[in-house]
Amino acid sequence: VNGDESRVFVRVSNLTDGVFAIAVTLLAFGLEVPRSDHHLTRHVLELWPDLLAYFLSFAVVGRFWILHHRFFATLERFDRRLLTLNFAYLSFVALVPFTTELLGDHGDHAVSAIAYAAVLAAAAVIDWLMIRYTLERQHVRAEARPGTEPYAARQTLLIPVVFLASIPVALLSPYAAEAMWGLMLLSWPAQRLRDARA
Amino acid sequence: VNGDESRVFVRVSNLTDGVFAIAVTLLAFGLEVPRSDHHLTRHVLELWPDLLAYFLSFAVVGRFWILHHRFFATLERFDRRLLTLNFAYLSFVALVPFTTELLGDHGDHAVSAIAYAAVLAAAAVIDWLMIRYTLERQHVRAEARPGTEPYAARQTLLIPVVFLASIPVALLSPYAAEAMWGLMLLSWPAQRLRDARA
Amino acid sequence: VNGDESRVFVRVSNLTDGVFAIAVTLLAFGLEVPRSDHHLTRHVLELWPDLLAYFLSFAVVGRFWILHHRFFATLERFDRRLLTLNFAYLSFVALVPFTTELLGDHGDHAVSAIAYAAVLAAAAVIDWLMIRYTLERQHVRAEARPGTEPYAARQTLLIPVVFLASIPVALLSPYAAEAMWGLMLLSWPAQRLRDARA
Amino acid sequence: VNGDESRVFVRVSNLTDGVFAIAVTLLAFGLEVPRSDHHLTRHVLELWPDLLAYFLSFAVVGRFWILHHRFFATLERFDRRLLTLNFAYLSFVALVPFTTELLGDHGDHAVSAIAYAAVLAAAAVIDWLMIRYTLERQHVRAEARPGTEPYAARQTLLIPVVFLASIPVALLSPYAAEAMWGLMLLSWPAQRLRDARA
Repeated sequence: VNGDESRVFVRVSNLTDGVFAIAVTLLAFGLEVPRSDHHLTRHVLELWPDLLAYFLSFAVVGRFWILHHRFFATLERFDRRLLTLNFAYLSFVALVPFTTELLGDHGDHAVSAIAYAAVLAAAAVIDWLMIRYTLERQHVRAEARPGTEPYAARQTLLIPVVFLASIPVALLSPYAAEAMWGLMLLSWPAQRLRDARA
Repeated sequence: VNGDESRVFVRVSNLTDGVFAIAVTLLAFGLEVPRSDHHLTRHVLELWPDLLAYFLSFAVVGRFWILHHRFFATLERFDRRLLTLNFAYLSFVALVPFTTELLGDHGDHAVSAIAYAAVLAAAAVIDWLMIRYTLERQHVRAEARPGTEPYAARQTLLIPVVFLASIPVALLSPYAAEAMWGLMLLSWPAQRLRDARA
Repeated sequence: VNGDESRVFVRVSNLTDGVFAIAVTLLAFGLEVPRSDHHLTRHVLELWPDLLAYFLSFAVVGRFWILHHRFFATLERFDRRLLTLNFAYLSFVALVPFTTELLGDHGDHAVSAIAYAAVLAAAAVIDWLMIRYTLERQHVRAEARPGTEPYAARQTLLIPVVFLASIPVALLSPYAAEAMWGLMLLSWPAQRLRDARA
Repeated sequence: VNGDESRVFVRVSNLTDGVFAIAVTLLAFGLEVPRSDHHLTRHVLELWPDLLAYFLSFAVVGRFWILHHRFFATLERFDRRLLTLNFAYLSFVALVPFTTELLGDHGDHAVSAIAYAAVLAAAAVIDWLMIRYTLERQHVRAEARPGTEPYAARQTLLIPVVFLASIPVALLSPYAAEAMWGLMLLSWPAQRLRDARA
């Protein structure tokens, strides 16, 4: 990585981290402070589905960020198409606060679960396309290739597959779709534990 | 670039990337979650003009960012007037979430298309003024000059010209103005393809 | 810290600083501009509890940031579990604008004080877990250990203890709970003075 | 500046730039998209006072940022009190979107002009205190002292003096107070011109 590439790297990383930081912080906008004092405690307690959607999205977007920053750390150069793909990726990450609020407010409707799954599946597919593209164009550092290839395939594809599979499920039952995402989330700490032991 | 200049560079880039990151993430605020469950699916599907405006603005602002970071990468020093021009530029970038929401909600009105085009034309003109100013003041690194001059002229001026030309068109038909921007957007991947082949 | 670790460090710090920057700036969203001109001066003056909650949260979150950046400065490496803990930490920091608005609007209700204290106690407990985890895993630079150990214990635990203790107090009187936080805040400048003299 | 100091510097700058970037981008939230299509053009044109307040605040906050980053560039170390002062400074910068919206919506009321001037005067006074404190504590690099001392005094104090002086004026006429700020703004390009010639 020479001086100019390093400068590009810093600015693309800054922009990407900025979008992630704002997207996760705006997730909390789905939580609305009740206007009136009337039955305040009950209204705050009734925010639990919004709070659940908040932590779900925080965990998913956090996981996306970890995958993305690991991937970026393997690169030795950028080109314009990669920048474009990264913007396309960010355009779906930035939609997560909207779909999270939809899910928190109307989680019992199929349309909410479908919108949520579609946005995250799109982001994950573009992430996978970015990894494939950089491997093909030799943008990945030689010593990072062996570690990147299987990792990219196995771990990145799990996410879009689960989200895409949950779309038809949501038509039958939004709750079943949401349970699928929850199971995927719960399988992550197990993986981490295995990685830590290895 | 010495130590002090490099520090200025980092902070101006941080601020600029921060404003861009926030502006693109706030674009999603034009998408409003329906309050009521009634006809929820229909109301979500009716958000398509907002979603179209969202992706249009994401693509345009992303393109602005790429041009801006390429331009900044050629600089070897800053002065106060360049900082002021950069703030003027950012003040129009930060207006894009407002004009995007206006376009998404009222895209069939001339005033929305005119406001949208005027804000982006202003940003693009200031970008062009910044490039001209830095070339004139010898702030561009000597080896970057040959690459900067024609590039700045051809690619940066296309954007304000299209947006300015779309303002009178919008008075006749907002949709025709919006089609002009779409054509400009579609011509970018073609350019990228040509660049990649060259 | 080698090149790759340093890159991870920069991106994690960027994301963390981004979430903090957005969280503190969004605190001001609890201050709502009155719609009508009618009795404007009185309505603006009646915002004082929101303004008090704003400065309280700014001071608390600022203090959290100082503790966090001191802690991060002692690290020589990251692992995935630390990244996960850091995201968990940030997920509570990002809730502070919500609990601050709740406190500003309904500070006389126990539920507001409890939600406020619970979110900050959770963040502080996770911070303490991160410090313990990194000391145990030898992620802290050898020369920074003697300084980190007692500091972490004394100063970081004070915060969750005060917030957790204020939860039962809030059930009796929200104002008493808020007074406890205020006393903790006022004890900080005193500590700083002592540190500066030492 | 050694390694550790440099790391602190980077993170404090990141946080500060983040708060500035968010504050200026949120200024546009004072511009509300009309809900209804009815008389849309007229309602958009009636946003001109909000737009004027937007550009005024963008220019003022931009100027604050330039002063702040110049000041930070002269430092060779930080201490905890300086961090605290910087947070106090940022807590007033983050209030600017609120006071800007108040000014844009109710600019003909004294309370709006007073709130606007008080917030900016507080930020400017804290900035001046930071500069004084660092000069006194020898945190400024020796070779930067001659340049910092007169500059700090002359240029930084002009801002709080104008804003503080405009508070009693606003009680008589909010418009006269706003004119005072406008004159201060217009005098800046003149100064810049003089600096550029020198």
